[in-house]
Amino acid sequence: MHFDWMNELELVDHHCHGVLEHDLDRGAFEDLITESDRPSPSGTTFFDTQLGFMIRRYCAPLLGLPAFAAPEDYIAERTRLGAVEVNTRLLTGHGYGTLLIETGHRGDEILGPRQMGVRAGTQVAEVVRLERIAEELVESGVSPTDFRSVFTDELDARLRTAVGVKSIAAYRIGLDFDPERPTAEEVDAAVNEWMTASTDGPARLKDATIIRHLIWEAVDRKVPIQFHIGYGDPDVDLHRCNPLLLTEFLRLSRGSGASVMLLHCYPYHREAGYLAHCFEHVYADVGLAINYTGAQAAQVIAESLELTPFHKALFSSDAWGAAELYSLGSILFRDGLDSVLNDWATRHGWPEDELRRIAGMIAAGNARRVYGLTTNEAGQDW
Amino acid sequence: MHFDWMNELELVDHHCHGVLEHDLDRGAFEDLITESDRPSPSGTTFFDTQLGFMIRRYCAPLLGLPAFAAPEDYIAERTRLGAVEVNTRLLTGHGYGTLLIETGHRGDEILGPRQMGVRAGTQVAEVVRLERIAEELVESGVSPTDFRSVFTDELDARLRTAVGVKSIAAYRIGLDFDPERPTAEEVDAAVNEWMTASTDGPARLKDATIIRHLIWEAVDRKVPIQFHIGYGDPDVDLHRCNPLLLTEFLRLSRGSGASVMLLHCYPYHREAGYLAHCFEHVYADVGLAINYTGAQAAQVIAESLELTPFHKALFSSDAWGAAELYSLGSILFRDGLDSVLNDWATRHGWPEDELRRIAGMIAAGNARRVYGLTTNEAGQDW
Amino acid sequence: MHFDWMNELELVDHHCHGVLEHDLDRGAFEDLITESDRPSPSGTTFFDTQLGFMIRRYCAPLLGLPAFAAPEDYIAERTRLGAVEVNTRLLTGHGYGTLLIETGHRGDEILGPRQMGVRAGTQVAEVVRLERIAEELVESGVSPTDFRSVFTDELDARLRTAVGVKSIAAYRIGLDFDPERPTAEEVDAAVNEWMTASTDGPARLKDATIIRHLIWEAVDRKVPIQFHIGYGDPDVDLHRCNPLLLTEFLRLSRGSGASVMLLHCYPYHREAGYLAHCFEHVYADVGLAINYTGAQAAQVIAESLELTPFHKALFSSDAWGAAELYSLGSILFRDGLDSVLNDWATRHGWPEDELRRIAGMIAAGNARRVYGLTTNEAGQDW
Repeated sequence: MHFDWMNELELVDHHCHGVLEHDLDRGAFEDLITESDRPSPSGTTFFDTQLGFMIRRYCAPLLGLPAFAAPEDYIAERTRLGAVEVNTRLLTGHGYGTLLIETGHRGDEILGPRQMGVRAGTQVAEVVRLERIAEELVESGVSPTDFRSVFTDELDARLRTAVGVKSIAAYRIGLDFDPERPTAEEVDAAVNEWMTASTDGPARLKDATIIRHLIWEAVDRKVPIQFHIGYGDPDVDLHRCNPLLLTEFLRLSRGSGASVMLLHCYPYHREAGYLAHCFEHVYADVGLAINYTGAQAAQVIAESLELTPFHKALFSSDAWGAAELYSLGSILFRDGLDSVLNDWATRHGWPEDELRRIAGMIAAGNARRVYGLTTNEAGQDW
Repeated sequence: MHFDWMNELELVDHHCHGVLEHDLDRGAFEDLITESDRPSPSGTTFFDTQLGFMIRRYCAPLLGLPAFAAPEDYIAERTRLGAVEVNTRLLTGHGYGTLLIETGHRGDEILGPRQMGVRAGTQVAEVVRLERIAEELVESGVSPTDFRSVFTDELDARLRTAVGVKSIAAYRIGLDFDPERPTAEEVDAAVNEWMTASTDGPARLKDATIIRHLIWEAVDRKVPIQFHIGYGDPDVDLHRCNPLLLTEFLRLSRGSGASVMLLHCYPYHREAGYLAHCFEHVYADVGLAINYTGAQAAQVIAESLELTPFHKALFSSDAWGAAELYSLGSILFRDGLDSVLNDWATRHGWPEDELRRIAGMIAAGNARRVYGLTTNEAGQDW
Repeated sequence: MHFDWMNELELVDHHCHGVLEHDLDRGAFEDLITESDRPSPSGTTFFDTQLGFMIRRYCAPLLGLPAFAAPEDYIAERTRLGAVEVNTRLLTGHGYGTLLIETGHRGDEILGPRQMGVRAGTQVAEVVRLERIAEELVESGVSPTDFRSVFTDELDARLRTAVGVKSIAAYRIGLDFDPERPTAEEVDAAVNEWMTASTDGPARLKDATIIRHLIWEAVDRKVPIQFHIGYGDPDVDLHRCNPLLLTEFLRLSRGSGASVMLLHCYPYHREAGYLAHCFEHVYADVGLAINYTGAQAAQVIAESLELTPFHKALFSSDAWGAAELYSLGSILFRDGLDSVLNDWATRHGWPEDELRRIAGMIAAGNARRVYGLTTNEAGQDW
């Protein structure tokens, strides 16, 4: 580190998830350190990636192994220590102060927000996934004619403690959706059709009219709305996850009181920066990308801070499942930002107190402001 | 600087605008240092951006303040000195030799070309905005049936002194327009429709047929045609400002004698480089982006010089309104190019005389050649 | 070089072509060092590009000239030495072990695979171009009703020695083609139409149905299928060469046993990295881009290794025509990778033996595995 204070910055992780807390064999572990949904080709390993190398570099010592321990030794030691001990070692000591945990993805397999707060020793708050709430309503047997009003009530109820919402429109319908708010009639008809098609098995929401409705309901509530942007698993059509496709929606939602939080963004982080620059209610992070680009994270961070105003950039780990993603989320963010700020200071004489100030904004301050973390209704002291 | 001669290069700014010459309060000034059209969120400031930091770093000392003076002190000193003094300090001493001033954007608020030449102590020439000429004709009451011939005469008249034209097709219709030249009948019909709709208030040209006609009229005149590309204010649909959308137009306009100047280009500067590489009549710059990406400008310049031949890259500031954009346009261009060339020289032994030669081409020589600055009809001595 | 072993890595060039072996005047040579199909503007030269500078830097000494010899001296020395001597000097001594030569582009003007093996002193194998095979069948007078079966036989015959296939769908139809396999009836109808239109002159295949059929025939054969991606000559619509447009095809071809090799990829190399990361049968290189981005190649290589697993990245030169492209393909790849790996090692302590291991995978190991170079049917010893 070039700056001592970099390791002391408290982090607000504005988008993350729970971790698994059972033993993992090598295959299960490798599945957690890739966005692929299939094993790597025969004779290869996902340890031979940026993320894999960084796990061996930084997490192995946290488990008491030498840096760059062999993958098989890493898995063995993980098992020997046990999941609780591993999670404790990997989640604590990395400066996390608050986790905003999004609970909509395979929430029954992972630790919930309260458990995460205990294990990580942090404040926690929830971010709810719009599409999952709707699916749960359908699975619980709501009638099509009641859907809108029940959803409204449920969203209000959840937002009494949750600090924001998330949409996975990128995955389900692409970001090139019609940005206008649908009419009540359109929504009712779409809900009816969806429910008719979902009589057996879990409901999977992929209807654009309904998803648009959910998003506009969130806009009405003036809350931060997280959007998955860019890179994800093979389910996404990445070229339909370009945040620029949201441009007209951003115009329509200006002045609503809602904020739009562009998550991950890679490889469209420069495009996201343009939106965060031009639209007063838009924010951006490069979470997920920091972990997955590893030794290249500094460059990605630098690019993300070209157009994004320093008061619009956020930190997130997007950790899910493996506690390593929390450790590295912090380590690589600090290391990358330190490297970037040092470069700018060296070349242009930016003063250290100003660097510290903007680093604090990105690490925590901006998230505290946008999510209202000092004033949330649950009365928690952030 | 690694190279002494870098600060001695004379600049031809092939795309810039006039500056304001009245006192500015903080809100008015912040409005000039962002591409957003709204204030930043409550409690934040556009000084917390790459451009804002660079104004404090490099322009504050030009006003007699310490580097990184507080924003309020900067604004106060700007007011105390007065607009003429501020403009003189910020416009002179940065090596500008010639300004090619585009006059089509809010021209009544800013200094005109002649005044800019006086204030900056430079040669000046005009670049005329195609869409604005057409709008002025309509506002002056030209009849629909006369439009084409009157436009032709007006364009010829303007080009007796102007050295090129600019199109903002990107803003008005997107770059995915039909690249073919429209027929006279199509143009007449479109003009008639536009005028019928513009009977009260100022005319705003956003008809694709007419804009295509204007562009092809410019092609016929074998002049450099500047196109806004990429990043701009929230009016643009940035994904429709990708220069690759011009590919078929570039094929059709090959051999015409006209040149196509791709302006700004960020974040599509690599795509612009491909076009400048493959099409003999295409040129590219990263003006605007240099100022707005600040400490990252060196990387942007480097990327823009991956495929762009060194005889096809140009310098511009795209300054408008705030004289700081001229100071920084020069400072950050020189600093960034110096850094990039030094990196290449260090790694690959490129000789200094060759670096100086290509820097001179980018700073001025290529623009002089393409715009014919030694032989323009006005007889000015460039 | 930071790592001694970097110059000792044996290269498998998984996508390259033959070189010319006759004397070249300056115009003919400049035509080989650009992707443009026209001369550079009057008064300019393609030597003023990244590639041109690197030829003067690295190839001039190989011809006995000082580094950065003037272009005219370089051409003169090239002529004085003669094409055989020049090719020998430029092709040998750069660590090429195996060339996978694609023979479909102007194959009658350049050295064939066997001759290339002799001149370069390497193993060689062929990669056949699907579209060219189909065109040759049509030119040879195959009947429309026989086309499918004759193509099948011909492809099988070629693949008895060839180690993979190449498609130029990007050039001919864009990558936004319908990813589904066409029916036999659809193919027969399209072939009939194509042949009817091709009665005089050489056949040029640009029918999407037929090209899709060829690709799916290759999928059935479980071979590596190379796709042109990204940057090329002015014939391409670059925005239709984004590899993400293949996403649905990649989903459909999962589990087929075929591999998809994304070639060149610039400026979409990050997008290609996403695909190589998420799809187990996808591989990517930045050949072509390394030569054409010259001093920037290290950055391009670094970006390409953000998401691409180290077991999915490949080396290629994409050399065609000028032997300089082989010399530089090796020199700039080694230099760039050395620089990138050293940066990562310096910042994150990646151990040298691990760096060497992944460099070996990228240079040769991954290609050997995917192309089955130890076990090809021709029985060659790789």
